[in-house]
Amino acid sequence: MSTIEESMLALGENARRASRAMMTAGSGQKNRALLAMADALAEQRDALKAANAQDVESARADGLEAALLDRLTLTDRSIDLMHEGLRQVAALPDPVGSVTATSVRPNGMRVAQMRVPLGVIGIIYESRPNVTIDAAALCLKSGNAAILRGGREALRSNVALGRIVQHGLRAAGLPAEAVQVVDTTDRAAVGTLVTMTEHVDVIVPRGGKGLIARLAQEARVPLIKHLDGNCHVYIDRDAEPEKAHAVAFNAKTYRYGVCGAMETLLVHEQAADGILPRLGQALHEHGVQLRGCERTRQRLPYAVPATDEDWATEYLGPILAVRIVDGLDEAIAHIARWSSGHTEAIVTENLSAAQRFQREVDSSSVYVNLPTCFADGFEYGLGAEIGISTNRLHARGPVGLEGLTTLKWILNGEGQTRG
Amino acid sequence: MSTIEESMLALGENARRASRAMMTAGSGQKNRALLAMADALAEQRDALKAANAQDVESARADGLEAALLDRLTLTDRSIDLMHEGLRQVAALPDPVGSVTATSVRPNGMRVAQMRVPLGVIGIIYESRPNVTIDAAALCLKSGNAAILRGGREALRSNVALGRIVQHGLRAAGLPAEAVQVVDTTDRAAVGTLVTMTEHVDVIVPRGGKGLIARLAQEARVPLIKHLDGNCHVYIDRDAEPEKAHAVAFNAKTYRYGVCGAMETLLVHEQAADGILPRLGQALHEHGVQLRGCERTRQRLPYAVPATDEDWATEYLGPILAVRIVDGLDEAIAHIARWSSGHTEAIVTENLSAAQRFQREVDSSSVYVNLPTCFADGFEYGLGAEIGISTNRLHARGPVGLEGLTTLKWILNGEGQTRG
Repeated sequence: MSTIEESMLALGENARRASRAMMTAGSGQKNRALLAMADALAEQRDALKAANAQDVESARADGLEAALLDRLTLTDRSIDLMHEGLRQVAALPDPVGSVTATSVRPNGMRVAQMRVPLGVIGIIYESRPNVTIDAAALCLKSGNAAILRGGREALRSNVALGRIVQHGLRAAGLPAEAVQVVDTTDRAAVGTLVTMTEHVDVIVPRGGKGLIARLAQEARVPLIKHLDGNCHVYIDRDAEPEKAHAVAFNAKTYRYGVCGAMETLLVHEQAADGILPRLGQALHEHGVQLRGCERTRQRLPYAVPATDEDWATEYLGPILAVRIVDGLDEAIAHIARWSSGHTEAIVTENLSAAQRFQREVDSSSVYVNLPTCFADGFEYGLGAEIGISTNRLHARGPVGLEGLTTLKWILNGEGQTRG
Repeated sequence: MSTIEESMLALGENARRASRAMMTAGSGQKNRALLAMADALAEQRDALKAANAQDVESARADGLEAALLDRLTLTDRSIDLMHEGLRQVAALPDPVGSVTATSVRPNGMRVAQMRVPLGVIGIIYESRPNVTIDAAALCLKSGNAAILRGGREALRSNVALGRIVQHGLRAAGLPAEAVQVVDTTDRAAVGTLVTMTEHVDVIVPRGGKGLIARLAQEARVPLIKHLDGNCHVYIDRDAEPEKAHAVAFNAKTYRYGVCGAMETLLVHEQAADGILPRLGQALHEHGVQLRGCERTRQRLPYAVPATDEDWATEYLGPILAVRIVDGLDEAIAHIARWSSGHTEAIVTENLSAAQRFQREVDSSSVYVNLPTCFADGFEYGLGAEIGISTNRLHARGPVGLEGLTTLKWILNGEGQTRG
């Protein structure tokens, strides 16, 4: 066994031990830890910025590209946001310990389910050091222990943030090992983390598709993840034109880089003439390249021809595939064929079309008259989000605190026996 | 690619296609299929018994042991039970389509979750052919497609049952491929089934620990499973002696072979003299071998010494490990150290001991004043059970129809956009 493997297993054992204490920690104690972290973050702002400056300097020397350098850099503003985030998570309701679904059986025994923490959560992320605080806060609040493995280039920042988190845990009388930052940049650490099923209950990867696809290949621990957000908006024959315009424009242009951004627009043939010319023009002028099917290009001459490749692609940029369909059936079939199961929307005033779309489209979120860019835990009212899942099992769609918990059955009786 | 692999992938594609039709099938249609299966089972009883007789004959010639031959044999009684089971599943409420957790966001959009089928479910089981009908019924009722792979020795019986199931599906206008029986005994078929993540969403293995451990090693598709049911009953200082006796005796002797059978009894030191002599005697006379710690053996001279091996073992037979503990803390620590996370129980009249035990013991089911042998979906009121899970993610504890479904988010708006 390599040294890295040994030290990861030791980390895992510590996490498992700490998770037992976390499981029974009260809300008050967990909130005190979160607020102590916020205070420590404020106090250690200068030391943190100094550690981050070293990371940024090394990364620049290594030729890291500007966008990544930007993500790596901690500013006063980003530190303020982490501080605010900790206070917000402290204010969220604690999902742990709630009891639901009580029923009384014919023999008088009472059957219920209690919400409990998952146990140990591994978070694997890329350059943004603020994930260290955000993920630690959510894991802590939901009663879990966490093992955090950030990007190589952010190591000094993450270690400094880890100290702040552990200070907060200790201040509230909780075990420091409830949140551990992996302090090696060796790739083998990740390989061990995603396979040590004895010590880790779930992995939440946060990063690009390349990272997540690689982890999905290697992992034995279940992942809460999505690979692609190839999201669709379908404008139905019975769409109200103003709503269709607003929803589709917003779905594409709110932010190109979010996983809920629309990547393919489907338009009912009978709605196309009324809606496409103005919508196409607006997107075109906004700098969005349109790639259309034959019928689309008859109406939007500036659109380039779309291929199957386009129907399959999550652009995450100012490109949109557009296809005119004969109706709802073809729209649903297109989505079944090409979607990544993330988020899809219909624009329609027709109740049965809306209901059919919402029932038959098999994605983690299905909207009526709303842009797909609403795919976000805060927007759904979850209070926080650790990620978005296109898994079918366990958490599906935006994952908040509840997705980091599980249920156990609790039965109460008076000595009944089974005959 | 081998022929087996190709034919399993084709089966998987058929299942995926059929699952789309199943997803939107109404309760009425699914119930008609279940009742048509029940009718077909009655009509084809003789043909089924003939196919089964051939399986039994081959198995006997191959020297299959008596207990397995017994499981393999379909009697009039077991066919009646399958028939009755189909009618019972038809009568269960359909979990699909129910909408919960509706909230209205500040911008007026309405957020809810709809219960939907998981998709395609693989069932891998051993000699009992009745699993073919039971599993098909539960997968069908919950709107899923199923791929059923039974034991080698039951192939003819399972193929005959598969025809009955497909007859029922067709009679109700549902695709026959919604339930497919794997008609090869080649081991490679299982290897493909548990790794074809594109076509199968979850595997439910039903069989011995050896089968399940092997599948867990190989699988890329998630399993709903448990390996061990190393279940504990703890008799607290404040236990009512009659309840303690009844609960512990029933937990061990209801049936030795069920996964909820008690395997280790923990007794508070101060309760031991009042309870252990009579309970030990009753178990001893019932033919249960007791293996005790030092303090137990001082009180029960006929108990043999227990080792760590005993604390770790699921006997599934007339053996019980017994340990006297200093109190609740030691009982909880023993369970944390040795339990398989299946089902544990405390016997006590003390409210705070009951609550601590139920909160702190991290198993899929935790009881107060009930024997662990109640671990069963029917007893919990689930109406049916596909298995028991000690997974932490998705379904935990007895898994009924709801465990074969998932949730999707459905959002409804009037053209709101994200700013």
